[in-house]
Amino acid sequence: MTTPEYAHELRNLLLNGEGEIRRDLCASLPEATLAEILTDQPPQSVWGVLSAMQPWKRAAVFGYFNLDFQVYLTENIDKDELADLLTVMSADERVDLFKRLPDEAKESVFPLLAKAEREDIRKLSSYEESMAGSVMTSEYVTLTPDLSVTEALEKLRRQWPGKETIYYAYVIGDDRRLLGFVSLRKLILARPTAHVGDIMKAEVVYIRAVDPREKAAELIAKYDLIALPVVNGGAALVGIITHDDALDVVTEEATEDMLRMASTDAEEYENTSILQSIRLRCPWLTLNLCTAMLSSFTVSRFQDTISQYVILAALMPVIAGLGGNAGTQTLAVTVRGIALGMIPVGKGRKVIMREACVGLLNGVIVGSIVGIIAYFGFHKPWIGLIMLLAMVCNLVIAGLIGSAIPLALKMLKLDPALGSSIFITAATDVSGFFVFLSLATLMMPFLH
Amino acid sequence: MTTPEYAHELRNLLLNGEGEIRRDLCASLPEATLAEILTDQPPQSVWGVLSAMQPWKRAAVFGYFNLDFQVYLTENIDKDELADLLTVMSADERVDLFKRLPDEAKESVFPLLAKAEREDIRKLSSYEESMAGSVMTSEYVTLTPDLSVTEALEKLRRQWPGKETIYYAYVIGDDRRLLGFVSLRKLILARPTAHVGDIMKAEVVYIRAVDPREKAAELIAKYDLIALPVVNGGAALVGIITHDDALDVVTEEATEDMLRMASTDAEEYENTSILQSIRLRCPWLTLNLCTAMLSSFTVSRFQDTISQYVILAALMPVIAGLGGNAGTQTLAVTVRGIALGMIPVGKGRKVIMREACVGLLNGVIVGSIVGIIAYFGFHKPWIGLIMLLAMVCNLVIAGLIGSAIPLALKMLKLDPALGSSIFITAATDVSGFFVFLSLATLMMPFLH
Repeated sequence: MTTPEYAHELRNLLLNGEGEIRRDLCASLPEATLAEILTDQPPQSVWGVLSAMQPWKRAAVFGYFNLDFQVYLTENIDKDELADLLTVMSADERVDLFKRLPDEAKESVFPLLAKAEREDIRKLSSYEESMAGSVMTSEYVTLTPDLSVTEALEKLRRQWPGKETIYYAYVIGDDRRLLGFVSLRKLILARPTAHVGDIMKAEVVYIRAVDPREKAAELIAKYDLIALPVVNGGAALVGIITHDDALDVVTEEATEDMLRMASTDAEEYENTSILQSIRLRCPWLTLNLCTAMLSSFTVSRFQDTISQYVILAALMPVIAGLGGNAGTQTLAVTVRGIALGMIPVGKGRKVIMREACVGLLNGVIVGSIVGIIAYFGFHKPWIGLIMLLAMVCNLVIAGLIGSAIPLALKMLKLDPALGSSIFITAATDVSGFFVFLSLATLMMPFLH
Repeated sequence: MTTPEYAHELRNLLLNGEGEIRRDLCASLPEATLAEILTDQPPQSVWGVLSAMQPWKRAAVFGYFNLDFQVYLTENIDKDELADLLTVMSADERVDLFKRLPDEAKESVFPLLAKAEREDIRKLSSYEESMAGSVMTSEYVTLTPDLSVTEALEKLRRQWPGKETIYYAYVIGDDRRLLGFVSLRKLILARPTAHVGDIMKAEVVYIRAVDPREKAAELIAKYDLIALPVVNGGAALVGIITHDDALDVVTEEATEDMLRMASTDAEEYENTSILQSIRLRCPWLTLNLCTAMLSSFTVSRFQDTISQYVILAALMPVIAGLGGNAGTQTLAVTVRGIALGMIPVGKGRKVIMREACVGLLNGVIVGSIVGIIAYFGFHKPWIGLIMLLAMVCNLVIAGLIGSAIPLALKMLKLDPALGSSIFITAATDVSGFFVFLSLATLMMPFLH
C-alpha cells in the first residue's frame, strides 16, 4: 500500500518519469492510488499519464476523480476521445459524468456512442439525485430459471468483463420480472445439472428506483448485502446498487444532516470557494437575524425592569446559553435518531414527552446549581429562585421544541435537519428571556 | 421482501403459529427480518422460535439482535446451550457478545468451548473498541503461493461453510506474513495449473490492527473493497474487516461526531433511559454553565453603560445569536471536513484563515443589514455603526475559533467534535459582548 510519505516521489516519477517506469507504475499501482496522485495536476500532465494506461484502467482511474475535476479534464480532449472514454467507464460513473457535461459537449458526444450506451445513459439519468435509481448501475449479470448450473456459470464467465459485481446473479422472468437471485458461491457448490430456478433464492430483498437512496443504504446495511437489485413500478429489474455506493450514500447523508443542522449545506464540500461558502451560509445568518430580533423585541418589553436592576442583563447570557445548548443536544439526538430509523412512525409524541422529561430534570439540577451560585453571589434569595424557575422552563421548552421541530419537518416530508438549530435557539431565547424577565418583573418588589 | 404492513401478522404466526408453519417461516424468511420481528419479545417466546431453526440460522438471527437484547436472552438458557450458540456464531459477533457477558457466565461457559474458539475469542478481544482489530473477524480463507489454482479452489470449497467472505482469499507465507490476495473471480478465470503465487495481486491494501477503525472504513470506501486484511506489528495476517462492518463503522462514527458536537454522546442510542440521557448531557450543561458565567461576568463589567442605555441589553441577543450560529456553521464544516479526510495535515492554518475571511464577509453583509435596521429603528446612527462593527468582529472570531478548536483537538489526538459547540458559543458570546459593549461605552458621549 502506498503510504503518504512516498506520494511525492511517486507523483514525480509518474508525471516526469521515463516511458517505461511510467507504464510499469500505471500497471502496478491500484486505481485509487493513481487517481489520488493525479488529482488536481495540470490536465496535460494527467492525460499524459492516463494515455500510458490500458483503456479499462484509464476509465477506472478517471472514475475515481471527483466530478468537477472529471468535467474539467474533458475540456482538454476531443469528442472522439471523450466517446471512447465514456464507452469504457462503468455505467453509473458514466451517467454521473454525462449529466455534468456542458450541453454542447453532450450533444456532440451522444451520437458517437453505441446504441447500448446511449440507452443506458437515458435510463440511468431519468432519476432524481435523492432517488435510489440515481445511484444504481446497469452492470450486473442476469440468468433465467431454466438454465442449468453449467450454462449459468458459462454465462457468468462470458459476462464477467465489465460487470461491477459477479458475486450475485439475478434471475429474471418475462419482461425482466425479478424472480430471485443466486450467489456465485451457491452456483459453484451446486450440482452442474441442477437448474437455476431450483437453487435460486426467491426471497429477495429489493428496492424501487423511486425510493429514497438512504433506504437502499439501510437495506444493504441491514441485510449485509454486496448488491441490492432495483426494480421499476412494474417489478422489472432495472439495475443494482453495490455495497461501495451504499457506503458513499451513508457518508454523504451523514454530512448533509450535520451541515444542515448547523444551517449550511453539504455543497460546501463540492465547491470550496469562499464566495460559495458565503452564498450557502449568509441566507441562514439573515434568517437568524430575523429570529434574533424576536428575542431582542422580547427583551425590549422589559426595559423598565432591566433599568431598575441591571444585573438581570448580565444574567441573560446564562439563560440563553443553556437553553441553546440543551436544545442542540435534543436536536442532534432526534435528527440522528430519525436518520437511523430509530424513531418509528407514530412514536413522535412519546419522543417529545421523553425529551421534555429530560429537560425538566436537567433544568432542576442545573437550575439548582445556578440558583445557589446566584444566591451566594448576590445575597438575594429571589435572584436564585428566578434563575432556577427560568432554567427549568427553558430546558423543558428546549426538550419540547428540539424534538418537535425535526419530527414536524419529517412529517411535512422535509429534511428534519434543515436549519433546525436556528429555530430552536430562537424558541429557547424568546421563551427563556420572557420567563426570566417576567418573573423578575413580578418579584421586583422583593428584589430591592 | 417483508413490508412493514405484514409485520404484525408475521409476528403473530411466528410466536403463536402451529409447529409446521413456524418451521416454514423460520426456514424461508431472511435472518434480518426474523431478528426484527423477534426483537424485544419475551425471552421464552424468542427461544421458542429460535429453537425451531437450524443451528446456523439460529446463530445468524441471534447475531442480528442488538447486544443488550443478546445478553438479556442468554440469561434464559443454560451454559451448555450458550456454549453451543457461541460455537456456531460468527467470530466477530461471538467475541462482541462474550465481552458483554457477566463475569460468572464468562467463567462457566469458557471451558465448554473448543480450543479453537477459545483462542479466537482471546485474540479478537485484545483490541480496544476504537481500533480496527475490534471490528475484524477471523473467518477468512488463506492460501499459500505454491498451491495450484485447482488445489486453491478445492481448499476454498472445503473452507466455505462458516467463512464470512470467500470472494477474496489471502495469500500468506511463513509466519502468516501477508503476501497478496486473489479474488474468486480471478481463480475461476485462471488456468487450472497456474500457481496462486503467479496470479495473486501483491499490491494489497491492508491495515494494522491497532490503527483507528475509521481508517479501515476509509480504505474500504476508497478502494471499493469487499474485505480488508488486518495485520499485526509483524506484518502477519490476523483477521479481515468486511464491507458490512465498514458500513456500520461509518454510521457509528457519523453519529458519534454529530452528538459529540452537540455536547452529548452516541451512547444515547445504546441505552435509552431518561436517567442515562441526563447522565450524558448534564455534565456538559454544567460546563456550559461555567462558560456562560464568563459571558455574564463580561456583561456585568458594563453595568454602568447598560443602565444608561438599556436598549443595549435588548440588542445583546442579536450579537450572541449570530455569533453562535456562524460558529456552529464553521464548526460543522471543519469537524466533518476532518472526519472525511479533506483537511490535510499542515493545512490547518489555511483553513482557519479561510473561515476568518468567510466570517469577515458575512459579518459585513449581515452587519450592514442589522446596522441599517438599527439606524432606522432607533434613529441613532451610532447604534447602527456599533452593531455593524460588533457583528464583523464577532463573525471573524466565530470563523477563527470555530475552525481552530476542532483542529487543535485533532492535533492533541482528541475527538475534534468533543463538546466544541460549548467552547465556541462561549468564545463568541464573550468576545461579542465585549466588543459591542466596549464600543458602546466609548461612543456613549454620542449616544445621547
